Order: sequence, then C-alpha cells, then structure tokens
Amino acid sequence: MKIILLLVGKNDTSWLRSAVETYEERLGHYADYKRVELPELKSVSGMSQQQIKDKEGEAILKNVKVSDTLVLLDERGTLRTSEEFARYIEKHSVSGTRNIIFVIGGAYGFSEKVYQRADDMISLSRMTFPHQMVRLVFLEQLYRAHTIIKGEPYHHK
Amino acid sequence: MKIILLLVGKNDTSWLRSAVETYEERLGHYADYKRVELPELKSVSGMSQQQIKDKEGEAILKNVKVSDTLVLLDERGTLRTSEEFARYIEKHSVSGTRNIIFVIGGAYGFSEKVYQRADDMISLSRMTFPHQMVRLVFLEQLYRAHTIIKGEPYHHK
Repeated sequence: MKIILLLVGKNDTSWLRSAVETYEERLGHYADYKRVELPELKSVSGMSQQQIKDKEGEAILKNVKVSDTLVLLDERGTLRTSEEFARYIEKHSVSGTRNIIFVIGGAYGFSEKVYQRADDMISLSRMTFPHQMVRLVFLEQLYRAHTIIKGEPYHHK
Repeated sequence: MKIILLLVGKNDTSWLRSAVETYEERLGHYADYKRVELPELKSVSGMSQQQIKDKEGEAILKNVKVSDTLVLLDERGTLRTSEEFARYIEKHSVSGTRNIIFVIGGAYGFSEKVYQRADDMISLSRMTFPHQMVRLVFLEQLYRAHTIIKGEPYHHK
C-alpha cells in the first residue's frame, strides 16, 4: 500500500522542514510513502475564502484517482488513540487498499466537493493545531503506527 | 498570574529548540511566562524505571510551592478544545491563581507522589506524542489560548 500525504501549502519555516524530513526519513524505512505539496492560494488577491477553498479543492481532487482512498485530516474526523490509528493503517493495508491519500488542507479548510469525495475523516485532537503543525504531528503518528504494527519498542519507550 | 512550564529533559534536537523558542517569544507578549528544565535521568546507569520516576518526581516537587497550582500533562488528563483551554487559563487568571505550573514529564512518566500533589491533569490528544513534541504542541496551545482570551484573529485565521 502506498501512503500519500497531500498538503496544501509549503513547509515555510525551517524548523518545520527539518522536523518533517526527520519523520519522513524514519517512515520511509517502513512504508511506501510520498509527499505531494499543492500551492496555497491564501495570498492571491481578489479571491474570497470560498473561492480559495474551491480552487484548492479542485487541485486536491486532480490528485485523487477513482480507486484511491481519500482521508481528510479534519476537526470533525474520528479521534483515535495511536494504537487504534495503527490498526486503522494495518486494516487498510491488508484489505487491499492500493493508495491511501491523507490530505491536510489549507488555512480555510476543504471545499464541499472534497468532503463529498472523501472516504473518511480523522482528527488528531479536540484542540485546533496550526495546519503546518498538523503535518508534523501526523507524520510522527504515521511513523509511530508502523512501529506499533511491527511490535517495535518506540511506542512504549 | 505567572505561567511556569516545568520540563523533565532538555530540548535535544535543534528544530525543536527553534520551534519552542518561536512560540515562547510569542507567548511572552501576552503572559508572564517562564520555562524551567530539570535533568532527565534516563541514561543514568543502574536505575530502574521506578527509581528514575521517583527521583524525577522529587526534583519536580522541589520546584512547587504549597500555594502553586500544579497541572500535569498526562494521557489520563481532561481533553479540551482550544477554546475550552483558553477559558481554563482565563478562569485561573481571574480567580487569583498566582503561579500555575504545567509539567511535562520524562520518558517514564510521573511518580505517585507527583500525581498525589497535582491539582489537575490535562491531555492534548487521545494519541500518544513524544514528550518533546508535547512541549511544542502545548506551547502553541498556550499562545493560542491567550490570543483567544484577547479576541485576536490568530485562532480563526
């Protein structure tokens, strides 16, 4: 199973870039993983928040094939423990999911069309995190999930 | 009200140091904030996990006065939204709490004595985060809480 992390916007601070790369490198030892970054339209002049969401939504959906499983990171998504998230990844992996795409949206969130296409939504916390920090926290959870699946000590150290 | 963040162990990666300092600087514009770091005993040879927790617990409690409010970041703590956490901070601030100490423990968690002394426990997520990432996520929430209290746009941008 291929795991694709689809991001709207770049990692624009250097500490975040380092941190994300650290966990991506670790994750790469366990999973067929790819990051795809789409441009954030935040600073384009003359567009309303709704227009930005719609445009970003179109760009997201262009990267999703019919057979892909699309999972949004969203405040309204399901809250799981790290163990439950590991079982979720494992279940997809053994049940024949070819590509699972996790999407972290831009500052204004997802368009209706993205919500309609989505197969599932997950949430990291009841708290609101900056969408850039969501990347870091989620990547660490992806890495952690794979160590849990393999029964490795990272999670319990 | 003074907000003290008491940490067991140092910020040992450079990206984490930069990130923590970024949010501490922002928080410093809103709050009387101080970070206190205690040595982590993880690598001391010949000590059991229990002995490490006990020793670290003694060091934590040495930094807590009778009148201080002690809040542990703990998986068993209360989950709040960012807005609820902001109201929690505000409530302490207006009800005469002089020092509120938030503690992020070491790799093995807190000793029984620390749990007994604690006034409250809070949790950031059902997921398990590395204790170093807890610092970053929690500092961002502290900063976010103050922008919510002040009615500033950060939280809703």
